[in-house]
Amino acid sequence: MGQDKSFLLTDLYQLAMMQAYFKAGETGTAVFEFFVRKLPDTWGFLVAAGLEQALDFLETLHVSEAELDWLERSGHVGPSLTSRLRDFRFTGDVHAMPEGTVFFPHEPILRVTAPLPQAQYVETRLINLLHFQTLIASKAARMVLAAKGRTLIDFGLRRAHGAEAGLLAARAAYLAGFDGSANVQAERAFGVPAFGTMAHSFVHCFADETLAFEQFARARPENLVLLIDTYDTEAGARKVVALAPRLREMGITIGAVRLDSGDLGALSVSVRQILDSGGLRAVRILASGGLDEAEISRLLRNGAPIDGFGVGTSLTTSSDAAALDCAYKLQEYAGLPRRKRSTGKATWPGRKQVWRSIGPDGRIAGDTISVDGEPREGTPLLQQVMRAGERVLPPPSLDEIRATTASGLERLPEPLRRLTPGAHFPVEIAPALVALAQEADRIVNPT
Amino acid sequence: MGQDKSFLLTDLYQLAMMQAYFKAGETGTAVFEFFVRKLPDTWGFLVAAGLEQALDFLETLHVSEAELDWLERSGHVGPSLTSRLRDFRFTGDVHAMPEGTVFFPHEPILRVTAPLPQAQYVETRLINLLHFQTLIASKAARMVLAAKGRTLIDFGLRRAHGAEAGLLAARAAYLAGFDGSANVQAERAFGVPAFGTMAHSFVHCFADETLAFEQFARARPENLVLLIDTYDTEAGARKVVALAPRLREMGITIGAVRLDSGDLGALSVSVRQILDSGGLRAVRILASGGLDEAEISRLLRNGAPIDGFGVGTSLTTSSDAAALDCAYKLQEYAGLPRRKRSTGKATWPGRKQVWRSIGPDGRIAGDTISVDGEPREGTPLLQQVMRAGERVLPPPSLDEIRATTASGLERLPEPLRRLTPGAHFPVEIAPALVALAQEADRIVNPT
Repeated sequence: MGQDKSFLLTDLYQLAMMQAYFKAGETGTAVFEFFVRKLPDTWGFLVAAGLEQALDFLETLHVSEAELDWLERSGHVGPSLTSRLRDFRFTGDVHAMPEGTVFFPHEPILRVTAPLPQAQYVETRLINLLHFQTLIASKAARMVLAAKGRTLIDFGLRRAHGAEAGLLAARAAYLAGFDGSANVQAERAFGVPAFGTMAHSFVHCFADETLAFEQFARARPENLVLLIDTYDTEAGARKVVALAPRLREMGITIGAVRLDSGDLGALSVSVRQILDSGGLRAVRILASGGLDEAEISRLLRNGAPIDGFGVGTSLTTSSDAAALDCAYKLQEYAGLPRRKRSTGKATWPGRKQVWRSIGPDGRIAGDTISVDGEPREGTPLLQQVMRAGERVLPPPSLDEIRATTASGLERLPEPLRRLTPGAHFPVEIAPALVALAQEADRIVNPT
Repeated sequence: MGQDKSFLLTDLYQLAMMQAYFKAGETGTAVFEFFVRKLPDTWGFLVAAGLEQALDFLETLHVSEAELDWLERSGHVGPSLTSRLRDFRFTGDVHAMPEGTVFFPHEPILRVTAPLPQAQYVETRLINLLHFQTLIASKAARMVLAAKGRTLIDFGLRRAHGAEAGLLAARAAYLAGFDGSANVQAERAFGVPAFGTMAHSFVHCFADETLAFEQFARARPENLVLLIDTYDTEAGARKVVALAPRLREMGITIGAVRLDSGDLGALSVSVRQILDSGGLRAVRILASGGLDEAEISRLLRNGAPIDGFGVGTSLTTSSDAAALDCAYKLQEYAGLPRRKRSTGKATWPGRKQVWRSIGPDGRIAGDTISVDGEPREGTPLLQQVMRAGERVLPPPSLDEIRATTASGLERLPEPLRRLTPGAHFPVEIAPALVALAQEADRIVNPT
């Protein structure tokens, strides 16, 4: 379909509101911020991701002639809007936390400052891009902590929610610390290393399993991984031992075996034994099949000799929390602070900055959310990344982002690193922000 | 990114296996089937969806020169494969259940019959397309049953997993019985009617709420929906009553009000009362904000006078079950039945057909899964949709698919229509299929 850059990839109400803003002359400067309201149950932190795609969206935003024609014929908006859309571009400023930054609820990770119709219109796709990658990077980071240094590969393209989800999940998982993805496109688009093994169907197409292994090895001798659970996992391991000398004569080294079913803990122990006593100590064991961070943690706690994990559905769909409770909210308009006060959805108004303090142990000691411009102790996490519609910083490489995540995870207090966190992170609201919220409430008289 | 048609949108192992199949001369006819292994907890049925996109993928499958160049340089495959890929097309047959068909676990909804390298390669994207839309159509159908005829609109683009997820979720929800989507692109791409209201940020940008309502109404007088919960929902309703005569003088009719927070049940009652006593009996009440099928059902059971629901995150992410346990499995190769026997993942081999019997009450009485070609009682659900790589049937319109779903839901036995189903659907395995499974196990000697 190739419509991920379409101007029409939005909610109809954005166009309706744009039309009304222009008609009412409400085109002053608006400030919107994107933040997460609360963590999914059992999650202790989040990892910011998706900024690169968000900035790309803003930088290239425009309406094509074909879209404009369609919009005019659709009857959804009038000529007063379509005439203004022809030259519509994003000309605002953006401040954001760098991708890979560890963050917590109510902390804005992105702020848009732009004329109201622009700042409003970009809401739908900005949330769509920031939410998904932040969700997957955070989920992946939990797996990285659980895997304690073992190899982690994304196997989740097939059950990801469409093509873009598969591609961006591979990126988000890699920046969170995964080693690569089975998704070939993610290597071409982002340089995420592609990994590949073999499927059960391959084994089924040959008269016997050993023949299947040998044919696969001859065709793909590099990074050779053999899937050994199609019929009987231990028998499969013995066939690998028997085949290894013949492959060695051909100059082929078996890199790893993969287990994809059954009791992975018990099978990894017996397979390790079979491989070791067959002289294949260097052959690694990969496991896959319905894994998530809890199962990875359980397997390793019980001493399973597994060297790497292929994680699919639970990663790319964030199976225990398919969405984050997040929002992109108006914080200021025409110089005045604004905030939503709907029951249960109240937000902090104004332009904000997040300050992070590091304790003597090198771990994060606490964050303070304050009014932008008020100096606080610590390091400010939001930085300007776009001015008047153009990037002011060269985008970091994916490996640089990966290093940011790794250092953030290292600095995470121990109770928050656990799969079931032992503490809430101390995020403090600065007095200046509390005062601003009271001012915002005074400005608008609700009755 | 626009890479949803890329040949590289696949798992690396598909390319590795293709290379090995060609090298080993294993290019005989393979039969793969796509099916769901089990239902999510509390779901009673599934709705087949995604076939149109799957067939489009198969019909247009090819490798671009740029992709071929990249593949050659990537080192992942050798020239023995890339030389064959230049003319690679899908030339196989496809049998499938029509989109909108209600179905159950273990019933194949799509069968591919093609030379092995083709049938294998298409696995990743076929699953990616069929799984997601089937997931969302099934989730949406649960909401349609819960809403008992009230209007249902998809509001979920922003938290859908990327652009394609947002677009295809709008399609899947519509074919399952939703009335439309906020996603403008879904109207252009598929004719899904676009609906739009207004956001809280709009109200915040005006000095008072009434002014915001009036400005919005003047700019967008058709299908006017006013969001009344920004400050105080009941006060908002009274402002709507006060404003209505002035709008009427301008020829503007208020279509509906929307509630997006608070106790939607209690607020809908008081808002209905305020509107009715203000002479606005024709103004409808729409509700949104964290809704799912359970909450819709609860609200209506308690008599909430809500005329329509906007459903976002729970729909487009299928929040209680972000993925289905589904598979695309080799069933036959070179004329012999095959099946996977990995622990806990055994499948039924061979080419299959599903026969559906309708009882005297007009409801589905039972399904039988049998070997294709063996006549059974009832109606066969799989039909040929592609021959030698080309469609043999004109694709049904989305409204025709919607009618298929509606009739399927009507025929669903009452216990399976409930949100927590009262019975398991009787799917029978025909004796001929049991015999074929035994034959398949004899063919491959696992030890």
